[in-house]
Order: sequence, then C-alpha cells, then structure tokens
Amino acid sequence: MIAVQEAENIILSQVTNYGEELLPFEQALGKVLAEDIITDRDLPPFNRATVDGIAVSYVAIVNGLNTFRIKATQAAGQEPVSIDEPDECIEIMTGAALHASVDTMIRYEDIIIADGVATININDIKRGQNIHLKGKDKLNGDVIAKSGRMINAAVVSLAASVGKTSLSVKRVPKIVVISSGDELVDAADIPSEYELRRSNNYTIKAILKTQGIDADMMHMPDDKAIIDIKLLGCLQTYDVILLTGGISMGKYDYIPQALEDAGVTKLFHKVAQRPGKPFWFGRHANGKFVFAFPGNPVSVFMCMYRYFLPWLNQSLGLPKELPVYARLSNDFTFTVPLQFFLQVKLNFTNDGILMATPIEGNGSGDFANLADADAFIELTAEQSNFKAGEVFHVWKF
Amino acid sequence: MIAVQEAENIILSQVTNYGEELLPFEQALGKVLAEDIITDRDLPPFNRATVDGIAVSYVAIVNGLNTFRIKATQAAGQEPVSIDEPDECIEIMTGAALHASVDTMIRYEDIIIADGVATININDIKRGQNIHLKGKDKLNGDVIAKSGRMINAAVVSLAASVGKTSLSVKRVPKIVVISSGDELVDAADIPSEYELRRSNNYTIKAILKTQGIDADMMHMPDDKAIIDIKLLGCLQTYDVILLTGGISMGKYDYIPQALEDAGVTKLFHKVAQRPGKPFWFGRHANGKFVFAFPGNPVSVFMCMYRYFLPWLNQSLGLPKELPVYARLSNDFTFTVPLQFFLQVKLNFTNDGILMATPIEGNGSGDFANLADADAFIELTAEQSNFKAGEVFHVWKF
Repeated sequence: MIAVQEAENIILSQVTNYGEELLPFEQALGKVLAEDIITDRDLPPFNRATVDGIAVSYVAIVNGLNTFRIKATQAAGQEPVSIDEPDECIEIMTGAALHASVDTMIRYEDIIIADGVATININDIKRGQNIHLKGKDKLNGDVIAKSGRMINAAVVSLAASVGKTSLSVKRVPKIVVISSGDELVDAADIPSEYELRRSNNYTIKAILKTQGIDADMMHMPDDKAIIDIKLLGCLQTYDVILLTGGISMGKYDYIPQALEDAGVTKLFHKVAQRPGKPFWFGRHANGKFVFAFPGNPVSVFMCMYRYFLPWLNQSLGLPKELPVYARLSNDFTFTVPLQFFLQVKLNFTNDGILMATPIEGNGSGDFANLADADAFIELTAEQSNFKAGEVFHVWKF
Repeated sequence: MIAVQEAENIILSQVTNYGEELLPFEQALGKVLAEDIITDRDLPPFNRATVDGIAVSYVAIVNGLNTFRIKATQAAGQEPVSIDEPDECIEIMTGAALHASVDTMIRYEDIIIADGVATININDIKRGQNIHLKGKDKLNGDVIAKSGRMINAAVVSLAASVGKTSLSVKRVPKIVVISSGDELVDAADIPSEYELRRSNNYTIKAILKTQGIDADMMHMPDDKAIIDIKLLGCLQTYDVILLTGGISMGKYDYIPQALEDAGVTKLFHKVAQRPGKPFWFGRHANGKFVFAFPGNPVSVFMCMYRYFLPWLNQSLGLPKELPVYARLSNDFTFTVPLQFFLQVKLNFTNDGILMATPIEGNGSGDFANLADADAFIELTAEQSNFKAGEVFHVWKF
C-alpha cells in the first residue's frame, strides 16, 4: 500500500503525448491548443474610431477652432477619407478606420451639427481621444494564444479574428470504460433482489464527456477466460482502459491477475486512502494504461478527479492546475490512518474565503449524497482531528 | 442610462419557462432536471458485504467462537446462503447480499483459512461490521435528485442506479446569434485594410456551447430594409435573439429603430458600465427576447456572463448562483462614474482566499488579453480607488 502522494507521483510520471490533429476552429472549443495563434495584422489593424462623431486634426483644436465643416461621412468598413483643410472634419462611425489627416475624435454627444457644420461644445479635448490606435493591443506576428492552453470562447474568438479557421489541437487518448461484476445488470434492466444496476460506467463516461471525450463502454462478467479475451482486445484498440470493480481480495476478483497475464505491468495496487483503497494502476509494454478503480461509486468519482483527470490534462500538455484551497466549516474526526476524501459543499464568504461544509455520508458506499456535493476535501492521513477553519486542498467536480 | 443592478433586475424579471422534454439519461448531462429522481428500492437494496471475507453470526463471536466451518462460498449477485449452525460461516465477496442468518463480516486480511475452516486472528469485532445495511443511504421512494438542479455526472450515475433511463429536463430556448456591421467579413475571408473579421458571433456561440446550447448564426449588413426582414423572420423562428453591434449613436446603427419597428419593446438601452454601455434589451409582444450587445468583443463577453447566462439559468429553473467573491491583489483606479468590469486572473492563496489579479488591458476594445483572464471583477461605480485586499464580486468564465 502506497501513500496518495506516491500514487500521484507514479501516475504523473506516466504522462503521455497522444499527438495532434487539425480541427475546424469552432469544433476546437474545449480542446488543448497545439500551436501558437499569431496575429496576421496589427490589432487593431488601423486607427479605429471607438465612438460615433467627428474626426478632426488636433492642431486645429490647439489653434482655437471649434467649428468644423463636415467634408464627408464615413461608415465602418469604408476607405478612410482625408480632410484637405484644418477647419474640415469627417463625420465618422464606430469601427471605421481614420485617415492619417485626422487624429482626434469628438463624440456626437459633445457637438451640435447644423447646416453641414459641427460645433464642439466641450473644452477638454485630448489629442488622440476616442481612437484605438493601430497596433496598440498587438503587433503583426505577435502570439495571442499560446500552444498548450485550453481553447475557451475567448480563444475561439481570437482565432476567428485572425482568420485561423482550423486549429491544431492535442489529440485525446482513445478510452474504454469497463464495468465488471456478476451482480450488475444494465440500467434498463430490472435487477433481482441480489443484484444492482450498473452505474460506475455511466459516471466515468459522463465525467469524460464533461472533458469533451466520448468513451466507449463495455461490461465483463466474473469469468477469467472472458476477461482475458476482452482485455487483450481492448489493449489493441484503446490507449487507456478505465476499469471498475473486481480488484479487491475476492475469489472472483480476477482482474489484477488477468491484467498481468495480458502483459500489463502493475505500477501500484492499493493506496492509503478512503475511499478508493484497492485502486490499481498499470502500464502495458505497448504504452497502453489501465486505471482499475474499486467498484464503489464514490471511489470511482474520487479517483477520476484526484488521479485520472490530472494525468489526462498533463498528457494533453496543460500546465499543472493551480490547487484550490478551502477552509473546513466544521470540526471533523477521522481516526483511520488513511488519507480521507470527504464530500463537501463549497461556498464563498463575502470576504473572499472558500468554505467547505461536509456532507453527511455513510462512508465510501454512499453515493446518494454525491449529487449534493461540489468537491472532495483531502484530509491528511497523519492527522485525525480536523478543526473548523483549517485549510485543505479541495478537488472540485 | 440605468445602473447595472437595475439592468439586472429588469432582465431577471423576464425569466421565462421554456417547458420540458424527455431525453435518454446519458444525453441529459448538463441539462436541468425537470422531475425528482426517486429510488425504486432501498439503497442499498440488501445488507451488502463491503469487504471480501467470511460472514458469521455475531452471537457466536460473543459466545467465544473464533473458528468457523465454511459452509459455502457466495459471489456478488448470487442468492444469499444461510448458515444452519452457529459455528458455520459463509465465504462471501464484496457486493454480495447477506442472508438474515449472518450479521457480521470478517475480512480475509483478518482470518486464516485451512481445510475448509476459517480462524479469526483479531479480537476487536463489532456486530454488523463491514456491512452496508439495507436502506442505510436511502429508503424506497426517497428523492435522490431534486427537480430544478443541474444534471452532473453524479446525477447520471444515480439515474442509472434506479433504472431511470429517460429523464425529463428543461427545454432550452431556441437562440440565434446575429452579427452586424458592414466592416465585418467572415473568419474565412481576407479583410480589406479597413475591414475586420467577425468574431463576436463565434464568441457567443462558443459560450452557449459550453452551456450545452447549439445556437444558429446570421450576419446582417448595415441596411435597414434587410435588417427589417431578417429581424421579422428571426422573431418568428427563435425564442431569443442575441445581437452584436449597431446599437450606438452612429448614422448606420439602425438596429434599435428596426427592433422597435418589428414590435420589440425596449426595456432598457444603455447601462452605466464599462465595457458594454450601449447594451439594449427588449421583449416582443409574442414573448421573444432581444439582447443587443455593443460590437466590441469584451463587452459581448461581459454582457453574456453578467446578464445573459444568469437569465438563461434562472429561466431553466436553476436557483440563483451563489456569488463568487475575490480579493483584489493590487490597487486599481477607475475614475469614470461607471461600474467597471476589470479582467482578472484568479488564484487561491494556501489559506483559502480567492485573489483576483488585474490583467493589463487597453480598455474595452482590447480583447487579446481576454484569453489570459479567468473572470471579470465588478468594481462599483460609486468608488474610484480600489485598494488591494478589498473584496468584490467576480464573474468567472
């Protein structure tokens, strides 16, 4: 049995690059960017009016002029119009490109227009006001989104603005989720008095879906011969196998042996934690990974957020996520020398402190409360009495 | 011009129920549950072994027995096997249902088995240990997930466990995203020196996609006749129109007039905020809504998170989200009497405090920094000097 930190270290030492693929930029939302997005022009690409009004030359203002003949009207998207005389102005709309002969904009709110003449009715005018200068945000060739980051709505928007209609993104591993156990029937079936419906496979598939991954699903009976065949097939087809159940000390817990028979080397089995103690992790010589979680639903949930998703995100090249810390709202006691993952509900106090309130549960078998929880708070194995106000790492889901 | 709080109040007074639909439970992930999920059996449905080992009658332990003849082996999913004599035990696997004749489980780790006899090698044994009692988590008919909540992976899992293979969920409104402005070309096109590529429509579509909504997209030129026709069509087809651009004071900003001509009543126009001051919101007599955002990308982003998503979530019946508060990391000054939405990066200190660090930007026109930000921090209009350590509401994206 190894400590949680050691399990994490072993898993993160196995981070794997699954390569890149090209996607239409809109479909790249939620993926990890595998190239820098670079501007193809200055941003903004021209001196851009940020208000509707008139554009003048600041020199004229300095020389005391406050009435200007409107030479032309220029809409956004039109070729810039010049003034020929200092007492001329261009009536110009937000988003339009200013001609080099004008350098200052006065808003409609600050002028009166009559008979083709605009009269300014404010005094405090600054050179260059209400203009977003060419290249002020970024210069042509600047990186606006770096390789290795998550593509969110802002990145999609930036890609559109520079005409990057396809993006290189990190490829996600091909994953199969396998449930096991003869006591489990399908969600659509009626279980006998001694059976349960499968749910762990749906849990994992749903968690993966929130990460933009469509995983396949499979069920294995407690039959070593069938398990052997199915595992060999999956080790051919998939990059990662996520298993639930069948890894404890039971007589029909064939999976650890079947995995070793299939050539998967055990990297660890059993972690000093509750829930999730029987967690098994291994790697095949062909580079495929097996995360075998215990069969209880809370263990599965915890192991996915505590171990699998950090491995996945680092395999996709994302930087290690900044830890989230919260303060425990109540005293809590857990005397077993295991790292304890307590289900909590999170909220912010109005002075910016994240509070974690334990949700009453009946131990690792109780997953009915999981729907009400926001996170696990990780309580260290070395400690038994956890005091209200103490701060611990939380794993949000 | 109205205050931010007033704009929020007006928008939230227009929360609208778009009804329900039935979905296969796996497809319901990310939707809002529109029915209670109820257990169809006790949870657990039987006295369930939580370890692998032997099941005995506690009375025998009290009477001093510590060796037990193994009467049978019972796998999970099998019909429970009884003991007939007090010195018998059943070898039983995790997940199996216990017969009424046994009430206590001893782990394999705590026994030695030889010649069909198990000898217990621990002393401290409690009645009922290592058994998850029938009905301990929930009783038959209990609600395990309440109507009106988000369906996350835990809820999908619970639905599977009680055999709810289809779920009633809240229907999302049908949405079209319309960009406008003659200076805008498609992301795939090469703009002239005075044009830009469209991006706001992609921003909005991507934000909606993160909420599980597939919106349609459309572009309108600065031509009142075309705008009139397109708006009338959209008001027939969609529940909500999200518009960007064309709502300022410019000569070609036809949209507010076109909306009123199409029968959309203005509920407000202009909010005392930066960015996003020209924001326009209205409602047609037929119940359709128009959120018309200014054309600059940061405004669009802010208005979506500050106004539209809260309206959407409350329309779907979700409870008002608990506010997120963060502490400003640096002094910041903003003297204009507008509510200021500052782009920030968030991180937790290791004592559980959420810190918001401003990202340097060039005002509302600068969206290149948005990709680096995590949230807007909302700085009140009544204040000009914001001190490091002061706490404000943040809007995460």
